[in-house]
Amino acid sequence: MKILSLFEPIREELEVVEQKLYQAAHSEQEPLRDTLEYLLDSGGKRIRPALAILSSKFHDRATERVLPLAAAVEMLHTATLVHDDLLDGSLLRRGSPTLNAQLGTGAVILVGDYLFARAADLAAATESVPVVEIFAKTLMTICSGELRHVFEEDGWRRTKEEYYRSTYSKTASLFAASTESGALLSGAPVATVRALRDYGYNLGMAFQIVDDILDFVGEEQQMGKPIGSDLRQGTVTLPLLLFLDEHPEHDLLRSIFKDREGREEKIRALVEKLRNSPAIGLAREEARRFTVQSKEAIKGLLNNVYRQVMLDLADYLLERKR
Amino acid sequence: MKILSLFEPIREELEVVEQKLYQAAHSEQEPLRDTLEYLLDSGGKRIRPALAILSSKFHDRATERVLPLAAAVEMLHTATLVHDDLLDGSLLRRGSPTLNAQLGTGAVILVGDYLFARAADLAAATESVPVVEIFAKTLMTICSGELRHVFEEDGWRRTKEEYYRSTYSKTASLFAASTESGALLSGAPVATVRALRDYGYNLGMAFQIVDDILDFVGEEQQMGKPIGSDLRQGTVTLPLLLFLDEHPEHDLLRSIFKDREGREEKIRALVEKLRNSPAIGLAREEARRFTVQSKEAIKGLLNNVYRQVMLDLADYLLERKR
Repeated sequence: MKILSLFEPIREELEVVEQKLYQAAHSEQEPLRDTLEYLLDSGGKRIRPALAILSSKFHDRATERVLPLAAAVEMLHTATLVHDDLLDGSLLRRGSPTLNAQLGTGAVILVGDYLFARAADLAAATESVPVVEIFAKTLMTICSGELRHVFEEDGWRRTKEEYYRSTYSKTASLFAASTESGALLSGAPVATVRALRDYGYNLGMAFQIVDDILDFVGEEQQMGKPIGSDLRQGTVTLPLLLFLDEHPEHDLLRSIFKDREGREEKIRALVEKLRNSPAIGLAREEARRFTVQSKEAIKGLLNNVYRQVMLDLADYLLERKR
Repeated sequence: MKILSLFEPIREELEVVEQKLYQAAHSEQEPLRDTLEYLLDSGGKRIRPALAILSSKFHDRATERVLPLAAAVEMLHTATLVHDDLLDGSLLRRGSPTLNAQLGTGAVILVGDYLFARAADLAAATESVPVVEIFAKTLMTICSGELRHVFEEDGWRRTKEEYYRSTYSKTASLFAASTESGALLSGAPVATVRALRDYGYNLGMAFQIVDDILDFVGEEQQMGKPIGSDLRQGTVTLPLLLFLDEHPEHDLLRSIFKDREGREEKIRALVEKLRNSPAIGLAREEARRFTVQSKEAIKGLLNNVYRQVMLDLADYLLERKR
């Protein structure tokens, strides 16, 4: 397991979560087990489980029930990635081949479904009906946000408002669900639960904006996927929207969306212009604004080591290069 | 709503369930709402919701909480059908075009995911952690059963044991989950819960076997889909397994699975032979056996109108022609 050094204070708990995730895989038939292990092995930074655990540390009723929650949010996240990569036709994620680069469409759909079911089972293991409800509502938010995108007719006309709504449903909703649920399970009072939910929401917004910036300016090798992937897959993100404010190259964008011919060259040209424009800096400002708000949200909470981790995490995620 | 006349004693409750299902659709953005309504309009006989409601009638703590459960099981069922039709490439279901005959793959995957989320949300509305758990485990069973089928290398070699296992995961598991959960929510004692679960399990097995028989002998128009669909989609079912016991045409079957050439003619020839063989009668015997067991399971329960509906339902489902 790759664990961020800043998660040191919750290392033991994260290790138990890791065991829970692998146990879920082990209980299954051969090809499915291998597939699940592959997904877990090529897994990410376990930010969502960490958020759930950290958020349970501000009240005394912190129980073991936060561990299945932490596993549940990671499982749900993995499930959405599996279906996302299939939808986008992505062949690489974090430098490893995606499932759809290896299996047929039917198998990938079912593996995703299975992961949803596993995630729901882990959520039920928290023995908290409100947590299961948050969990289900978050999945609804994620799916209906993606559907809005799929049903969208003119993706190149996207507004900032639409971008923020999609950023919430895609990322911030699950960040917020993780912190809110962790807080709820600890028995924290309403104000604390709300503060932690706000932290999660703002952190998630910042996280996704940074992701969208890195998709333009990151190093291909470090990112583990091609630069400009979002645009190539028909998604207009904040840096591009900010670029368009100053350089109204809407015709170029429209032709990238509408015409097959010379598409790749047009994308490269647009990405190149954008990389060297102030739009990147402006988008970073926006990410910074959300980061500040996330830290602001928890400033009234108990000043313990976990709150410090959460403050440091916000800075770390803003500055990350991948 | 098409309601079976034998569900008359629970008509009011089924109508509330129907409202709940449509409410879920109404709360959504335009194209998604239309899609959900389309799915509900072309919906089936609502057997699973009825099973949940009927099973809650054998103890005094029957509450309103069984209504979201009933909606949840129908929603889950619909979700699995949406992904199934996509996997099978089916273009017709119950005489109406499937979603994948109308929308792109991505949209169909997401609509299915959304329905899973909605179903989980409805399950959470029962406010019962054990019910959510049954719910999640059932979805795991359904998905891992389908994955076994997808990962299967030589589908034409299928054994009866494999057929029964798949019949459980595909159909009987959700029937059993519906009756068990309904009983649990009513506060019934363990023995009653077990009896109702047994009823649901056996009814589900019989139901699926009848389905598999109808796929061979039904009238195309009545079925709303082509005859021999299962075989065409690479699924070997009980009638065919029983036919093979007497007529070892394994080479023909193998060539249907392996060779593209003349496939359709071979399928038609095999279906024709099978329709006129004793295999159909033997499969019916098997369905009858499960039907008898389902009725047997609830014979010790309170002799009320709901038990009578359940007994009649078992006979009705065995004799149905579509």
